[in-house]
Amino acid sequence: MKIKYADLKPIMQPKSVAVIGASDKPGKVGNVIMQNYVDVGFQGELYPVNIAGYDKIMGHKAYKSVSEIKKPIDLAVISVPAEAVVGSVIECGKAKVRGIVVVSSGFAEVGNEKLQEKLVAAAKRYKIPIIGPNCLGVMDTRSRNDTLFLPTFKIARPKIGGVSFVSQSGSVGSSTLDLISSEGFGLSKFISYGNAAVVDEVDILNYLAHDDDTKVIVFYIEGVKRGREFVELAKKATKLKPVVIIKGGTTPLGASAAHSHTASLAGSSEAYKAVFRQFGFVEAETLEDLTYFAKIFDTQPPVTGKKIAIITNGGGHGVIATDALYHSGLGLAALSKATQKALRKVMPPIVNIRLPLDIGGDADSNRFSAALELVGQDPNVDAIITIVLFQTPGADEKVAAAVINLALKKTKPVIVVSAGSSYTQSHVKLMEESGVPVYDSPDSATRSLNALIEYSRYKKGLI
Amino acid sequence: MKIKYADLKPIMQPKSVAVIGASDKPGKVGNVIMQNYVDVGFQGELYPVNIAGYDKIMGHKAYKSVSEIKKPIDLAVISVPAEAVVGSVIECGKAKVRGIVVVSSGFAEVGNEKLQEKLVAAAKRYKIPIIGPNCLGVMDTRSRNDTLFLPTFKIARPKIGGVSFVSQSGSVGSSTLDLISSEGFGLSKFISYGNAAVVDEVDILNYLAHDDDTKVIVFYIEGVKRGREFVELAKKATKLKPVVIIKGGTTPLGASAAHSHTASLAGSSEAYKAVFRQFGFVEAETLEDLTYFAKIFDTQPPVTGKKIAIITNGGGHGVIATDALYHSGLGLAALSKATQKALRKVMPPIVNIRLPLDIGGDADSNRFSAALELVGQDPNVDAIITIVLFQTPGADEKVAAAVINLALKKTKPVIVVSAGSSYTQSHVKLMEESGVPVYDSPDSATRSLNALIEYSRYKKGLI
Repeated sequence: MKIKYADLKPIMQPKSVAVIGASDKPGKVGNVIMQNYVDVGFQGELYPVNIAGYDKIMGHKAYKSVSEIKKPIDLAVISVPAEAVVGSVIECGKAKVRGIVVVSSGFAEVGNEKLQEKLVAAAKRYKIPIIGPNCLGVMDTRSRNDTLFLPTFKIARPKIGGVSFVSQSGSVGSSTLDLISSEGFGLSKFISYGNAAVVDEVDILNYLAHDDDTKVIVFYIEGVKRGREFVELAKKATKLKPVVIIKGGTTPLGASAAHSHTASLAGSSEAYKAVFRQFGFVEAETLEDLTYFAKIFDTQPPVTGKKIAIITNGGGHGVIATDALYHSGLGLAALSKATQKALRKVMPPIVNIRLPLDIGGDADSNRFSAALELVGQDPNVDAIITIVLFQTPGADEKVAAAVINLALKKTKPVIVVSAGSSYTQSHVKLMEESGVPVYDSPDSATRSLNALIEYSRYKKGLI
Repeated sequence: MKIKYADLKPIMQPKSVAVIGASDKPGKVGNVIMQNYVDVGFQGELYPVNIAGYDKIMGHKAYKSVSEIKKPIDLAVISVPAEAVVGSVIECGKAKVRGIVVVSSGFAEVGNEKLQEKLVAAAKRYKIPIIGPNCLGVMDTRSRNDTLFLPTFKIARPKIGGVSFVSQSGSVGSSTLDLISSEGFGLSKFISYGNAAVVDEVDILNYLAHDDDTKVIVFYIEGVKRGREFVELAKKATKLKPVVIIKGGTTPLGASAAHSHTASLAGSSEAYKAVFRQFGFVEAETLEDLTYFAKIFDTQPPVTGKKIAIITNGGGHGVIATDALYHSGLGLAALSKATQKALRKVMPPIVNIRLPLDIGGDADSNRFSAALELVGQDPNVDAIITIVLFQTPGADEKVAAAVINLALKKTKPVIVVSAGSSYTQSHVKLMEESGVPVYDSPDSATRSLNALIEYSRYKKGLI
């Protein structure tokens, strides 16, 4: 079924939602979905549908069938038992519902291929795009559309932002979503697409590539149904915006597990790496990097140069960060004569004017500000890694503010390394909420910066 | 100067401490040190010393000089200006103080080699072991000895445990210490030894190897003064207990930075790796791994087999963990026929009885308990990675309890992967406080398990 990118808009940003299988009973999937629409403050029309025929469900007028609603419906979320799903889809088709999310399971994933074929046939007959079955569904932070049947106390919802996250796996999707909520960046859309019976990876990538609210696309996949179309589309998409990808099942052992999980075909780690590189994907090798990379792409300007400045109030961290730079294939910048001279004037004699610039364990906000400003304006410096160890006597809120001030200029990437517990974390929060990505080790910071540089170079045709 | 391991005991676990340079003025180093001794509840005698001659400092009777105290003094912490340090050391020598920590800076690290030589000469004359100068000093959680001049609100103090952490760099030391405080394992000792003018890496390794409270030694170094002695000693130490090590400056770029930081000599990453392997060190390549590895060594029994079972309530995480196993050189166990049969009886039909064992997104504590128990007693299984995604409907406190129950048997390693924000973290805390190491990604869990296996094999002479 041919799906145009605009076809997914009613699913992602609906003005009206019918919840088929809505329920007043706490714990029921149809109850959690209704509750979440209420909790996240969905602003559109909400129509609970339950065949049992209630007057009201959770305070909203209820309907026995979508056919009774008699108003335009953008999205129907179906959470009825598997055997009742196709009937509901047909009713939606007749009622001219524009898109469907089927969260119910019991289709191809349990061997019931026939039921899934009927679902696909119904979708084709009425030309309705369907996400699922057997999925968590979708979330759009701006329109507060949220079909996830997991309560907000189990998964915190991320703030509004530019990252759209797509996951074939519900568990990777839900746990990563929950993690993102405590990171400093925001989410545009979340899509868990389950069995991909109708809408698949190609349709979703196409939609997100065209979506103006999406600045960064992040993908967890185990396999793609239309491989060639996916990479051909990716070639165009990655010229528009970064597509960070992690593929499960790239080792012989993992591929066998993936085949059992989502019937995905094997392919060696190296083969995937080569394809990802060729088509401009940003590959994350671990789930940690998926979030780390999303954070830098969401907040930092592009950069093609590899000459990095490190400013630190801890010598050991400066050494480790320099090792990490080298491992990533990046280099230290050579400070200009003018910068060296200016730094010499303002830094205490004990500070060695060279990179990594160790401004001392007693550095306060004045010293940090001076170093950040002078190094920041040096044309030899492509990006800055600032290491702020808040355990030291001089590092406080003013140091966080100095870093934020430089980063807000957005002339070159400014990222931070800060490791520690509560005192540190309160300052990390300040910086992240101001759009400064903070990493808890030099290695994750450097890998992320390298991902940004590699992608910026790809986009400019430099690699 | 020849230092025996027992010589460091008065420094680490003193019954009486003189704080030379103690002060009532908030913010002064000698004030923070006094305050910390009070805050952490040091149980021994505390003697503030200040040349200005106060009656009392922070409620304790004060002395003009250690010579006035006229009682046995195990440890003197010296925080007076550099030029007054040698004089204080001589006074300590005359007063038969058993050990000294010099936190003051202004010695070799700023080019004042002569002053440092005088310090060494004084130590030799009076045969007093000295840690420092230019260091944070030491901490012993059991005796509540704490010379760190950083307030507890900036660095949280870890609970009592079996890990002893040694850092040449103050910044790596303080930030890692702070991080450890929010991890699930406890600390025995912390040693930041700065310029290593008298007591150096060899002395410290020797002391910790003999220290019964230390189960795991963790080291950050940039260089060692007595390289041959260090590795020869390590050979013995690593047969007694794991020594996790991270070396800063193993790349050409990083080595140059390390030389500027602590005048350490270069050596290629590969050369160090080879030495570390030969002498049984557990090498951490990143600061994250330093903590991750410490956690597994502190809590889990040794294991030499490489056949791992993965139990998960998330299919995608099972796939990623299997890929990670493969990358680490580990393998999946083959469940015995008996285990397979028993699992088939208790698992729902939809659960595929194979590893990774995906017990389903709806798995509750009963299903987790059954899987953990049956897989746990299978002789084909060497260690278990349990993936609990608390975002799912069935995962709750009882699941955490089921994991804890199996882990407490300590018959084979049981480690956990759980990723998420507040709901997840509250359960992570429960598990970690019960001695179950929890990782937030399959990759860090697998790397840590591999470190445990490699070390266990080394210790048994299998590699």
